[in-house]
Amino acid sequence: MASVQNAGRSRVKILFTTVAVALPAIAFAAQTIPVYLSETARATFKALPSITPTVANNPITPEKIALGKAMFFDPRLSASGVLSCNSCHNLATGGDDNHESSIGHGWQKGPRNAPTVLNAVFNIAQFWDGRAEDLKVQAKAPIQAAVEMANTPGQLIATLKSMPQYVEWFNSAFSGEADRVTFENVAKAIEAFEATLVTPAPFDAFLNGDDAAMTSEQKQGLTLFMDKGCSSCHGGINVGGEGYAPFGLVEKPNTDVLPENDKGRFAVTREADDSYVFRVAPLRNVALTAPYFHSGKVWDLKQAVAIMGTTQLGQELTEKEVDLLVAFLNSLTGKVPEVAYPVLPAETPTTPRPVLHILPQ
Amino acid sequence: MASVQNAGRSRVKILFTTVAVALPAIAFAAQTIPVYLSETARATFKALPSITPTVANNPITPEKIALGKAMFFDPRLSASGVLSCNSCHNLATGGDDNHESSIGHGWQKGPRNAPTVLNAVFNIAQFWDGRAEDLKVQAKAPIQAAVEMANTPGQLIATLKSMPQYVEWFNSAFSGEADRVTFENVAKAIEAFEATLVTPAPFDAFLNGDDAAMTSEQKQGLTLFMDKGCSSCHGGINVGGEGYAPFGLVEKPNTDVLPENDKGRFAVTREADDSYVFRVAPLRNVALTAPYFHSGKVWDLKQAVAIMGTTQLGQELTEKEVDLLVAFLNSLTGKVPEVAYPVLPAETPTTPRPVLHILPQ
Repeated sequence: MASVQNAGRSRVKILFTTVAVALPAIAFAAQTIPVYLSETARATFKALPSITPTVANNPITPEKIALGKAMFFDPRLSASGVLSCNSCHNLATGGDDNHESSIGHGWQKGPRNAPTVLNAVFNIAQFWDGRAEDLKVQAKAPIQAAVEMANTPGQLIATLKSMPQYVEWFNSAFSGEADRVTFENVAKAIEAFEATLVTPAPFDAFLNGDDAAMTSEQKQGLTLFMDKGCSSCHGGINVGGEGYAPFGLVEKPNTDVLPENDKGRFAVTREADDSYVFRVAPLRNVALTAPYFHSGKVWDLKQAVAIMGTTQLGQELTEKEVDLLVAFLNSLTGKVPEVAYPVLPAETPTTPRPVLHILPQ
Repeated sequence: MASVQNAGRSRVKILFTTVAVALPAIAFAAQTIPVYLSETARATFKALPSITPTVANNPITPEKIALGKAMFFDPRLSASGVLSCNSCHNLATGGDDNHESSIGHGWQKGPRNAPTVLNAVFNIAQFWDGRAEDLKVQAKAPIQAAVEMANTPGQLIATLKSMPQYVEWFNSAFSGEADRVTFENVAKAIEAFEATLVTPAPFDAFLNGDDAAMTSEQKQGLTLFMDKGCSSCHGGINVGGEGYAPFGLVEKPNTDVLPENDKGRFAVTREADDSYVFRVAPLRNVALTAPYFHSGKVWDLKQAVAIMGTTQLGQELTEKEVDLLVAFLNSLTGKVPEVAYPVLPAETPTTPRPVLHILPQ
């Protein structure tokens, strides 16, 4: 553990798509709002696009989005028929489930806090440890995880193929392909739908030139966020989510917040340097996604900000500073796109029955 | 059990709001479609209204519907924060959950199959045994049931009051009242939303005079449905749901389908005559709501129809007859109203935390 406590800034691995630039070297008090704040901010952050972003190797079409939406909400993606993607990444509650860690198959508790699906398309990689390179790869994991949806690709495809309406939708979404109802295409459709889950916020309007979109307090918070160095990790389009950093860069958090048995990205890379390294949390809609951190142990956003101060910056933030930073974070709460709740294909006599018991591992 | 097997038709208690009339005394083969079929059918059934129906003691307003929708989808109505009304009465899958019986708090299994919420406003009473006189009374029960949402009114009201947006919505929906955020008003709002869940089907268009709305096979099935006597119980606006009848009127089903330990309405009235009596199942959207019966033991609609033939009519229906009856039942599959998935109020530091463990009874 000493290595984490003594870790220097050299261990921070940030792969920004936008280049973080140094703030103007003008000294200002925390509560002062620089004249060129929006310009400065534009060099560090990026406003959300007004159209659905593209994703690699998966052309997005209306048919694919519609199919992906159906599957996102369909509890029959799980072995039990109880849990859908939306169970843990609930679009009604910030794109996550407001649990320390999610409740899955057989009421089992997952190992880490569910990250929000909102704007997830902009993250450098998926999961807290970045082990999935994109949303396609991500989507396949919870479906198969024994403590989550506990399904198998074979069983899922049998389920989907048992419903003629689903087969028709796959045929339409993947018309150019020989084999259409496949696990790969399930993942592609879900990724296409998730790419539409972009939530423009007051902060975006501000970046786009609307100076009145943020309150004075929020602007002070933004100033402080850049001045203190928060934005050197939490930058870019998702205000984070673009790189990796050790949790406890300067000072290790207590073991409740950072349990010793979860070494984060180390499990992915097996590099000692990656012990307790996690993907930098994207902060859009953070006000909606308590509890915080991969452990989900902190319920209060102010407390989470204060912990970041000590562990990552080595600073005891004042109450006033925390309040201003939280005010800025509130400007990241965006508008969730309107989603018409889907009507799903009906089961048929050949649809596999729900499996409710916990299978031996 | 002998009393059930020997039970005569006199035990059927039907309280029709529309009066069932005898079919014209013209002899016709099962597959013949009478000339005046739609007129005859109109005397037995009733088309769905084109506007939201009124409910007793609960004026329906847009504010109340919107609040009720939020609560219908909010998992924080349950102690665990995992289960919402929509978990078991899923609007995406026919207004129920396609389970034998529902999975509730702690992955416990409920005692009976979840009935559909679609068109439930038209039922004479709620639950399989009719123990709730309306949707207001119904809504309060699963919230408090230990095997379902396992919450308490006090805890729920504390949860709702911890979120300023909810308080505002209650203030707006119940503006004339002194005390607005109450358990009674939770139930009223949910009832108001549920009253909008009306699903016009081809059968309604047919009843309204569009002769082409049903196929020839469906009309043959309707003819048979009335001729065989199915409609003497399954009549009215919900094609059932308007009265009570013993399951096993003529012949007792096997104990898998009708478990001996569930005496149905007897538990409500304590009258011996009500042993194994259940509310007649409303048949709208029945093609979407497998598995069937209060026990949820029958997954195939054809099998369910055949069982009704032997147990309620004392007839072995032919395969052709079953097919025609199922064709008619398919004409009852309606259009679910478009529901925009809600964005719910965010939790605050004072919102009670999820309770995941099973409490001792």
